[in-house]
Amino acid sequence: MSLTIRLHIAPYKTLNLSDINKTKISSFSTRIRPKPIYHSNSLIHFVYDKPKMLDSSNPVESSIPSIKSSLIEPDGGALVDLVVPESERGARALEAESMPKVRLTKIDVEWVHVISEGWASPLTGFMRENEYLQSLHFNSLRMADGTVVNMSLPIVLAIDDETKERIGSSKNVGLVASDGDLIGILRSIEIYKHNKEERIARTWGTTAPGLPYVEECITSAGNWLIGGDLEVLKPIKYNDGLDHYRLSAQQLRKEFDNRQADAVFAFQLRNPVHNGHALLMNDTRRRLLEMGYKNPILLLHPLGGFTKADDVPLDVRMEQHSKVLEDGVLDPKTTIVSIFPSPMHYAGPTEVQWHAKARINAGANFYIVGRDPAGMGHPTEKRDLYDPDHGKKVLSMAPGLEKLNILPFRVAAYDTVAKKMAFFDPSRSQDFLFISGTKVCTKSDSSVISISTVGSECGIIRQHHVLELMNC
Amino acid sequence: MSLTIRLHIAPYKTLNLSDINKTKISSFSTRIRPKPIYHSNSLIHFVYDKPKMLDSSNPVESSIPSIKSSLIEPDGGALVDLVVPESERGARALEAESMPKVRLTKIDVEWVHVISEGWASPLTGFMRENEYLQSLHFNSLRMADGTVVNMSLPIVLAIDDETKERIGSSKNVGLVASDGDLIGILRSIEIYKHNKEERIARTWGTTAPGLPYVEECITSAGNWLIGGDLEVLKPIKYNDGLDHYRLSAQQLRKEFDNRQADAVFAFQLRNPVHNGHALLMNDTRRRLLEMGYKNPILLLHPLGGFTKADDVPLDVRMEQHSKVLEDGVLDPKTTIVSIFPSPMHYAGPTEVQWHAKARINAGANFYIVGRDPAGMGHPTEKRDLYDPDHGKKVLSMAPGLEKLNILPFRVAAYDTVAKKMAFFDPSRSQDFLFISGTKVCTKSDSSVISISTVGSECGIIRQHHVLELMNC
Repeated sequence: MSLTIRLHIAPYKTLNLSDINKTKISSFSTRIRPKPIYHSNSLIHFVYDKPKMLDSSNPVESSIPSIKSSLIEPDGGALVDLVVPESERGARALEAESMPKVRLTKIDVEWVHVISEGWASPLTGFMRENEYLQSLHFNSLRMADGTVVNMSLPIVLAIDDETKERIGSSKNVGLVASDGDLIGILRSIEIYKHNKEERIARTWGTTAPGLPYVEECITSAGNWLIGGDLEVLKPIKYNDGLDHYRLSAQQLRKEFDNRQADAVFAFQLRNPVHNGHALLMNDTRRRLLEMGYKNPILLLHPLGGFTKADDVPLDVRMEQHSKVLEDGVLDPKTTIVSIFPSPMHYAGPTEVQWHAKARINAGANFYIVGRDPAGMGHPTEKRDLYDPDHGKKVLSMAPGLEKLNILPFRVAAYDTVAKKMAFFDPSRSQDFLFISGTKVCTKSDSSVISISTVGSECGIIRQHHVLELMNC
Repeated sequence: MSLTIRLHIAPYKTLNLSDINKTKISSFSTRIRPKPIYHSNSLIHFVYDKPKMLDSSNPVESSIPSIKSSLIEPDGGALVDLVVPESERGARALEAESMPKVRLTKIDVEWVHVISEGWASPLTGFMRENEYLQSLHFNSLRMADGTVVNMSLPIVLAIDDETKERIGSSKNVGLVASDGDLIGILRSIEIYKHNKEERIARTWGTTAPGLPYVEECITSAGNWLIGGDLEVLKPIKYNDGLDHYRLSAQQLRKEFDNRQADAVFAFQLRNPVHNGHALLMNDTRRRLLEMGYKNPILLLHPLGGFTKADDVPLDVRMEQHSKVLEDGVLDPKTTIVSIFPSPMHYAGPTEVQWHAKARINAGANFYIVGRDPAGMGHPTEKRDLYDPDHGKKVLSMAPGLEKLNILPFRVAAYDTVAKKMAFFDPSRSQDFLFISGTKVCTKSDSSVISISTVGSECGIIRQHHVLELMNC
């Protein structure tokens, strides 16, 4: 059995192909099963058919051969790109040498990645207090021109007393990874208090112990937050064999334009795809065609940052997603699989806004929202932390998301008459089988996990199901 | 010593004067010291000088003799008035007889009062889930036309399982006071879950035990919220000898027009006025005159609903306020003292928005905001619950409050050179005396408490200071 890895990225000017070539293939076998990955996704095909060079300074305009893209405008009007041009990296690195340093955690680096590629546009760095307070209280930012953009999660960088002391009255700081490597610069900094209790209460709607992101990132973090304008010395890479899946918001926009998409519908997930999802995504495309769109493209966009310990690991999920395309359950011609670099908060209705807003910045104008999005069980009580319906309700009301079309998730179940997954029809409810926490192999060679979305939606799918499925 | 009560309300058509005449004078002596109250407030004088009848159907237009009022527009464009016209009350009461009943607490009735008079415009009743979620997550409501109004506190009515059961599938319910009296009707009701933890966390930014409003209203409340359109059978009265201070938002607007105010600046307080406040209010007027306004009017607007046990009682505060006017520390010609009927949440930056928004509805276009507005000590930790600066910052960013001019509180202290309260001048800080928790009588017959605003602003003034002062 051979390992076939196919790149699904265009040879854009901004892309550092040498980074990809350096991918540690040897370490793959320990994380990725030796099966073809993603080899039938036509993102590769399309790009290789049209290998024209794009003007990265004006990507949207220059990459459209005939029709004007109907891609949604990024928040703030222009996609933020904070990666220092290669020619200036040396000088910036030199400049940063004399700055006080702030050491970043793994999750801090994920946020640097997110901010630098414009997923959080118009945010140009870790939040200053002005932005933090608006995010915390209003889930949105008011721009200088009076327009409002959504910003539901505080995207902040915590520092401890000692670091604050060391920074003193410096205006700029260098950001370094845990191994000491310089990652970027934060300029015109502002340091303000990190009231953890208030941040947690207003973000999660609870202060109960056991919230995964809180335990991982906040409890032990410093008592200060540092905001400022970010510069990243080079694109963030993880060297985990999956970097080629991590298309930036700009790369995705270019690809949507390349494919002449007139609608882009995004599907966020942090667990394997199952038949219910597939049914939903295919049905969404059908509905968009009925609405008159000629070429709706699906952005299948698994979250790639921090997830809690009992979620399915990213590499397993990526393999499963690739098989879904390989098996033709989703059409590779109209589907793009890419990794969303954000860490997961599990903050329910607050976080789903972030998930939707970030996809606007990547060009999606339709967003599919499920039951209890970004939700989890209450950490100390026997109940869901959030009302499972609040996510989609809050999303439909959220300031700054008015321009996004919200597509509520339809409930799928196993139709015992049709003998397949189908949308639940309440008029013949006796025909439907809702299965919770159990897998159903609808055919022995299927790569798609067939689990009802009723119960706890994606959350019920655990790694052992994926592994079992692989042997189905 | 005689008791002199002077009405400070106009003989408007909508006003039920008989209610006022029935005020239980006999019970006064137990609550209000036998001193003249408010007798020099020129609100009386003005109204009695111009006893013309106003057209209540179009109060603003018809009450202005010469100039057009520049009063700020109420949120939603029209001031909500939910009091059933007298001619229809009998029929409504009869209709309500057959409805399931919801028994209201004292604080529920305060909210009925608030909603019915349009302080929460455009809210027309207790919140349905749609409004509740927007309030909780965004501190604002998006109207059908896309405009946004501020709405930072959930204004909700809780019911228990038994009441929900009793309501069944009824569309409307009758609202009754604790003594069984029918107060109003809630129509086209919607019942939804009362997730207390989430409500508390998102409103207060903490779930620590000991929050006064939570302990009084939420902990023991039912697990359901009931929203709907409110009708109130007659104006809410308390018969505590202070009802004549409780001008509705509409009555205030009429009075501002009567006085031909071209600017109205509101000052919210829940504790006695001190010299620092007085200095600030007079200085604000001076600044508004300098800005070109011809007739700025001060709305001195103490909060009259629920307050925590160690705040100064309303009757004592009202007496103190009246003395401030009586002594000429504030000019009665340009000051209106009235009671704001809302209960107090002590929810800091979240609540100060409500305090400001409600005053917009009463016609105020300037709002004075102090240090740590609506704040208190953390209930379980030795610190302020909120960053004292967050209130004014959040207020200046709050959606829906853009049309309001926010006037930050200037810090006053005792100037040992000028021998009076003055705005703190950092260039000669040695000349200023900051006093915390102690009163200073600047002259033996003063009715104004002179306490520095530094430390914990109004919160440091406790009843014993007021009583001491009365004997100064």
